Amino acid sequence: MHYVLTLSCPDHPGIVRAIAQGAGAADGNITESAQFSDPVTGLFSMRVELESPWEDVDAVRSAITSAVHELGMHLQIRPRDEPRRMLILVSKIDHCLVDLLYRWERGELPVDIPVVVSNHEDLRELVERHGIEFVHVPVTPSTKPEAEAQVLALVEQHRIDFVVLARYMQVLSDDLCRSLSGRVINIHHSFLPGFKGAKPYHQAHARGVKLIGATAHYVTAELDEGPIIEQEVVRVNHTRTPEQMVALGRDVERLVLARAVTAHAEDRVFLCGARTVVFHP
Amino acid sequence: MHYVLTLSCPDHPGIVRAIAQGAGAADGNITESAQFSDPVTGLFSMRVELESPWEDVDAVRSAITSAVHELGMHLQIRPRDEPRRMLILVSKIDHCLVDLLYRWERGELPVDIPVVVSNHEDLRELVERHGIEFVHVPVTPSTKPEAEAQVLALVEQHRIDFVVLARYMQVLSDDLCRSLSGRVINIHHSFLPGFKGAKPYHQAHARGVKLIGATAHYVTAELDEGPIIEQEVVRVNHTRTPEQMVALGRDVERLVLARAVTAHAEDRVFLCGARTVVFHP
Amino acid sequence: MHYVLTLSCPDHPGIVRAIAQGAGAADGNITESAQFSDPVTGLFSMRVELESPWEDVDAVRSAITSAVHELGMHLQIRPRDEPRRMLILVSKIDHCLVDLLYRWERGELPVDIPVVVSNHEDLRELVERHGIEFVHVPVTPSTKPEAEAQVLALVEQHRIDFVVLARYMQVLSDDLCRSLSGRVINIHHSFLPGFKGAKPYHQAHARGVKLIGATAHYVTAELDEGPIIEQEVVRVNHTRTPEQMVALGRDVERLVLARAVTAHAEDRVFLCGARTVVFHP
Amino acid sequence: MHYVLTLSCPDHPGIVRAIAQGAGAADGNITESAQFSDPVTGLFSMRVELESPWEDVDAVRSAITSAVHELGMHLQIRPRDEPRRMLILVSKIDHCLVDLLYRWERGELPVDIPVVVSNHEDLRELVERHGIEFVHVPVTPSTKPEAEAQVLALVEQHRIDFVVLARYMQVLSDDLCRSLSGRVINIHHSFLPGFKGAKPYHQAHARGVKLIGATAHYVTAELDEGPIIEQEVVRVNHTRTPEQMVALGRDVERLVLARAVTAHAEDRVFLCGARTVVFHP
Repeated sequence: MHYVLTLSCPDHPGIVRAIAQGAGAADGNITESAQFSDPVTGLFSMRVELESPWEDVDAVRSAITSAVHELGMHLQIRPRDEPRRMLILVSKIDHCLVDLLYRWERGELPVDIPVVVSNHEDLRELVERHGIEFVHVPVTPSTKPEAEAQVLALVEQHRIDFVVLARYMQVLSDDLCRSLSGRVINIHHSFLPGFKGAKPYHQAHARGVKLIGATAHYVTAELDEGPIIEQEVVRVNHTRTPEQMVALGRDVERLVLARAVTAHAEDRVFLCGARTVVFHP
Repeated sequence: MHYVLTLSCPDHPGIVRAIAQGAGAADGNITESAQFSDPVTGLFSMRVELESPWEDVDAVRSAITSAVHELGMHLQIRPRDEPRRMLILVSKIDHCLVDLLYRWERGELPVDIPVVVSNHEDLRELVERHGIEFVHVPVTPSTKPEAEAQVLALVEQHRIDFVVLARYMQVLSDDLCRSLSGRVINIHHSFLPGFKGAKPYHQAHARGVKLIGATAHYVTAELDEGPIIEQEVVRVNHTRTPEQMVALGRDVERLVLARAVTAHAEDRVFLCGARTVVFHP
Repeated sequence: MHYVLTLSCPDHPGIVRAIAQGAGAADGNITESAQFSDPVTGLFSMRVELESPWEDVDAVRSAITSAVHELGMHLQIRPRDEPRRMLILVSKIDHCLVDLLYRWERGELPVDIPVVVSNHEDLRELVERHGIEFVHVPVTPSTKPEAEAQVLALVEQHRIDFVVLARYMQVLSDDLCRSLSGRVINIHHSFLPGFKGAKPYHQAHARGVKLIGATAHYVTAELDEGPIIEQEVVRVNHTRTPEQMVALGRDVERLVLARAVTAHAEDRVFLCGARTVVFHP
Repeated sequence: MHYVLTLSCPDHPGIVRAIAQGAGAADGNITESAQFSDPVTGLFSMRVELESPWEDVDAVRSAITSAVHELGMHLQIRPRDEPRRMLILVSKIDHCLVDLLYRWERGELPVDIPVVVSNHEDLRELVERHGIEFVHVPVTPSTKPEAEAQVLALVEQHRIDFVVLARYMQVLSDDLCRSLSGRVINIHHSFLPGFKGAKPYHQAHARGVKLIGATAHYVTAELDEGPIIEQEVVRVNHTRTPEQMVALGRDVERLVLARAVTAHAEDRVFLCGARTVVFHP
């Protein structure tokens, strides 16, 4: 069986060796390994894939934890091929949702999608056609707290690992951001830090940039300021209207979001201050 | 002989036909043509290459101008293969200068470089080795007006068409920006509008972006806000230090600047409000 | 009303002027113009968009044709906003079809899709859900001529302008290639001319290339040798299996095909010997 | 002190743990680690950076080797910051050489360049200006064996680690390829496997590709068939002449070659059958 082990802690000598010993204690063979020690924060991030004949994840976890306990690290171990559980929040714009569902159906994404939540009814048929539960949670300024409570309840109920805002047109409250910290991925339709906020393609058009882009990032209380997971750009020229940029941007947004979801679901993304460490394969 | 005809004016019907007739009046055959009518500003930009047996540019200009005079357009005509005269301003960082000189020597750039000006002596040998005059114009806060006057005098004396700031570490005064409006190209070492001002790679590192870039733009009185001519990016990851980003950025900067210089020198760039129209071949 | 005028003929002086006069004869204003004279073949290609108060395309065609008849050019004029009629041929692999249908539904593609033809039944539901006729035309070695005749009949019946092979796993006969010459676009899942024929991602993996790609090209009798319309690549590394390359390639294939379809449907692609001239906006 | 440890061997369980133990035996802390087990060849490649207070590379090597000797692996250990010694072979085309020398002078390349060898005298001044020995080794069909012997002697004499063909217009003999197997990097001016052999840009122009590229690869006896280290492409269109493609290609070639040289000199490239494993940072 394959396991993924991840850890993030202040760097000090001996971590890698301890992990190797821990893997050995579980009869494990390390098949992939990536690590990074950040000189700015002093944070050490590590991701290891290991193969072990042991079929009991608790036993593996316990064996490895014993081997490294003196180092006071906190580490996570889980079966590599157990898909992460993802909840999608969406409004009316559908290209990111359509793309995620297509990739999921083709087996490209290492996730289960038990439920899609929207503040509108428009995309119900699309979602249900894929055999996925669709929950309509309308949001108005006055009902926002209840709506967010309902989302949190769905997260609990479906044992959701992480949430994706697939062009969800509501700003999450600070409370929700904190509750789900490091577990909510947003796709912003600009190359951040340029063009934060609303109508970024119109801003990009007005500024006359020659490349437009999209950014997948973790959601924090500060709008469009969370740690960036992935970015991509596409070339434009003076003939492109803001509307054509919106259309071109759809291709970039869906690609960037799919890459970020894959990296996150494979435990390849680590928070590191205001930045991320991403161990791409 | 080949000529380049450019015009920029409020759009109205009949311009293209009038230009075609004007070309005919000069026995000219249109060999390349590009045009754009900007819906935001209402501005019409056009660039035409034409071949004519006439060898006298004034005669060609006069023939075409007569044909279109009723339209009240202002147009420029010049021999296509007459290189533009470019002055380079540089400080100590040399990669953009080295690259421009290399391309110029290889015949890649359609320019003459009569003179390079620097506020330091460091790059004299490099410049003079290429047979180009090097002028040291030191700048201090108190001598800045005199220094800029000296630059302007060199622009006059050498009949300079446009100026390139090849990593010139001085901010031009508003007066100089106005005097040379639309004729000064700067290379900024970030993907604008992100990371204006000083140390953009350090800003990019702190923000954790996944692509870094460079921007060539016309210089205006507002720092790093001028109309963008060209941009390019390169992928980075969490392992890159700000210093490594500086090194990676050098490749992007020199490429972007060379493309912008080529486009400008071939009369392919038109100002259009805060944006540019660039007729790439 | 907007019209698109295209012509392709041996280059000689005066064509552009004649076209401008012809546009004038139809009270037309030229709003976009692109031209290219190929030094290898001597072929001149031109595409013009013009706006005229005349609502009758035959009258416009006649006015322009009269103006240029002495030049012996053959030109096409059609209303710009009249969508081209596209027939899609597909087998079982669905990502290109899914993508074309999504873009068509969003109004991104300037085409009508009256019918989708497949040699399998698998994609019927997907197609019919979009309100498009699905025709199953099975192909075996012995029935191939009849099958192709049926496709040709559908082309006639639906007044099809061009055919797209959206991962159609049958080689067209030489006869069909000739009948539809310049009107069939194929997407090949490699960066041609590398890896022609079957299983290109497996070939790419075996060769160890660091970028994989896709190519949209016109179909000719010689397999994977037709004139290239568009290409794109994506980076891979040693960790990617052939199967993962197939998945990564899907993103490139659908993007490349969509760009090629758009360019062709907007009359921006011209054959020029073994190459194409593509006037991107 | 920092050390780089590399190994390549048939995969079997326990290698990573043994290496970790070996590092521990040398009081070493693993600061970077990358590994890959190739499912096609069964080959395991690993690269580890470790920091140890021990200043004696032989002692470190001996400690680690003892720890892993039962696994029968062959591994290399060397001080990370000791530059590799690179010999450049060049003819008359200078852009790759100019670029390598510029990067070397700026400290971008982790190499020493004791000597540049050319079959022409043209680039002597350029090389010597950088304080590097230039050796003219003319090659004619009849003197080729002697010329190659002279190159091999220079490799010996200067304790050269690897050789770079920076647009060297001579095909190496099979004997020389074998003698320096895995130690000679060539830059080919096409996106291999497309356009092998001579004048690839002219081939690319004739085929009408929409992207042109360059490939850095190890030299083997079969021309342009060696394992690929790095590739990059740049977009072109129908207006580009073969000569302009040559100019555009220069930018790609120098970039690709610099990346390949850096990766090789940092021991990041492993041969794996006909392919390479490259552990980019």
